[in-house]
Amino acid sequence: MISDRASKLKPYTAGEQPKDKTFIKLNTNENPFPPGEMAEAALKNIDADNLKLYPDPDASQLRALIAAKENVEPENIFMGNGSDEILAFAFYALFNGGVVFPDITYSFYPTYCTLFNIDYKVLPLDEDFSLIKEDYISKNYGGIVIANPNAPTSVAAQSGFIEQVVSTNKCNVLIDEAYIDFAPKGSSAAPLIKKYTNLLVVKTFSKSYSLAGIRCGYAIGSKELISALSAVKDSFNSYPLDHVCQKVCAAAVKDNAYHEKCCADIINIRERTVDELRASGIKVLDSSANFIFVKSPSSGKELFEYLRAQKVLVRFWDKPRISDYLRVSVGSFEQMERFTDAVKSFNKEINSKKEIF
Amino acid sequence: MISDRASKLKPYTAGEQPKDKTFIKLNTNENPFPPGEMAEAALKNIDADNLKLYPDPDASQLRALIAAKENVEPENIFMGNGSDEILAFAFYALFNGGVVFPDITYSFYPTYCTLFNIDYKVLPLDEDFSLIKEDYISKNYGGIVIANPNAPTSVAAQSGFIEQVVSTNKCNVLIDEAYIDFAPKGSSAAPLIKKYTNLLVVKTFSKSYSLAGIRCGYAIGSKELISALSAVKDSFNSYPLDHVCQKVCAAAVKDNAYHEKCCADIINIRERTVDELRASGIKVLDSSANFIFVKSPSSGKELFEYLRAQKVLVRFWDKPRISDYLRVSVGSFEQMERFTDAVKSFNKEINSKKEIF
Repeated sequence: MISDRASKLKPYTAGEQPKDKTFIKLNTNENPFPPGEMAEAALKNIDADNLKLYPDPDASQLRALIAAKENVEPENIFMGNGSDEILAFAFYALFNGGVVFPDITYSFYPTYCTLFNIDYKVLPLDEDFSLIKEDYISKNYGGIVIANPNAPTSVAAQSGFIEQVVSTNKCNVLIDEAYIDFAPKGSSAAPLIKKYTNLLVVKTFSKSYSLAGIRCGYAIGSKELISALSAVKDSFNSYPLDHVCQKVCAAAVKDNAYHEKCCADIINIRERTVDELRASGIKVLDSSANFIFVKSPSSGKELFEYLRAQKVLVRFWDKPRISDYLRVSVGSFEQMERFTDAVKSFNKEINSKKEIF
Repeated sequence: MISDRASKLKPYTAGEQPKDKTFIKLNTNENPFPPGEMAEAALKNIDADNLKLYPDPDASQLRALIAAKENVEPENIFMGNGSDEILAFAFYALFNGGVVFPDITYSFYPTYCTLFNIDYKVLPLDEDFSLIKEDYISKNYGGIVIANPNAPTSVAAQSGFIEQVVSTNKCNVLIDEAYIDFAPKGSSAAPLIKKYTNLLVVKTFSKSYSLAGIRCGYAIGSKELISALSAVKDSFNSYPLDHVCQKVCAAAVKDNAYHEKCCADIINIRERTVDELRASGIKVLDSSANFIFVKSPSSGKELFEYLRAQKVLVRFWDKPRISDYLRVSVGSFEQMERFTDAVKSFNKEINSKKEIF
């Protein structure tokens, strides 16, 4: 009944979206702040009558605004129904004969490889979860994917490293920058697309723009790579971005001041949270994202369940190397206080048990 | 730079979406009527704050409403970002070792086959553009796709024919019912999914619900087929339907009275248009869709360009068998008057030229 390849798929499991709204939801890296007033106004101003028509298949207005912001041409921009869709198209279009990515990274990458029958090899991160340089310089891979900052570790690549990878490899290099707006200014590889035709940078409206609910992402790359993505898109779905999405995201791009403030606020909350956790002896990796990677004083699972019982939802993976860690999205100041208080109580319990035995 | 398979793609070309809004747009089978008041109210009532969160990945509320309307379980319903996305997933998941479809049908089908490397064979329609029965009964194909009513011809399959196809073939049968709401009541194959596990029926909000701009479609099928589609979706994009789309479409499904009135009005306008064209000697196929297939008194291209000059945009394909025809969406009463007047003038010009020579 079902095709062989469909039977063999290993679907990605997204973070839980609980129907129970009393949870403090720190499990899918959503933004605790609402979309800006300009985005909200754009939503309110949608003329329902326009919905009877197909949306602009090229999202021309939105693309032009993004191109201006990224300081490239509209032909260097590709739009997708969330950055996941773009990643899928990119895996299909850009990787001939295999691809490599870190052993610990966004777990959708191997899923795309299975979907499109692409050979992949994982390159283990160093013990501190950093990229091992030699593994990525002057190699002969079919393609390279790096999430920067990486997920779920929150760790950013060293400054200058991405350019070294792109310049010393002939293959296409995909940099997944879903979290780049929470990294230090100037971290994005996007400006490099003018210099290197083998670079594709993918960004999203889901995190820093507080628009996970509207499904929009974009890629920045050479015209050659963007054309290839367009060919896949036009072989799949002519109109991936709906009319409302295009209008709301266009308004969000225009509202630069709000976007910058949001990112700065989240970075502040993140740093306070990290400081507080560390002060009570909890290990947390240096984060350049809107989430932190926290080492549990016991097993990751135990802390995960302890938090869940207190209605704080975070993300845990029962996987090698990271089963002692939790990925925790940076929520509002109040949410993070509840989270850190809970972790501290847990830590106390664990320590008192240790003292008893 | 680009993978071999991406280089070989033959993307689908969608109908033009002119920026010039003075055109009478009868080229992409959009609904001339606006979405209903309930859908409009749902749009106006969206809380922008909700957009910061990922949408429900399973579109549970919307699926439940559709399931109730289609008289099946929610597990028999699959949602997609437009029916095109669903068709793509279905081609990937359901057709092992090849698929057949008519020579004249939705031209996205061969595009999906190229995208996913599926062998396909086209089965020529009869001279009157009807399906040739023997080609579809008790065969040994890898899969069968039938658009009912067919596009761009507007012709519906004979009553009972779809069940014959589904019951006499072991392979999966995909019935693309994008236009079914404009066919006589009881034409949909959806109720048959309770009897046959090899049947998938695909519908859309783009046509009869006046919601082409919001991108939503759904499939109805056995739990086995729906699970297979879900596995593909979850290997591609966890959240294909945004929050606004889910809310607006849910309201549209609830507003059954408006939906029925819209469809009835379009059918009325269609029949008046067909009658008027035929009365002036123009050949038009019997339509069960929200468009008509009109034979030009000269070449299709000539009439297409004549209409375009008069700011009436219709669809023309320079392809074997149909290059004398135009596909014309059923617009408002006023739009169709302008269209028929233009065709009549063209016809007069052609006839007077014929008289001269």
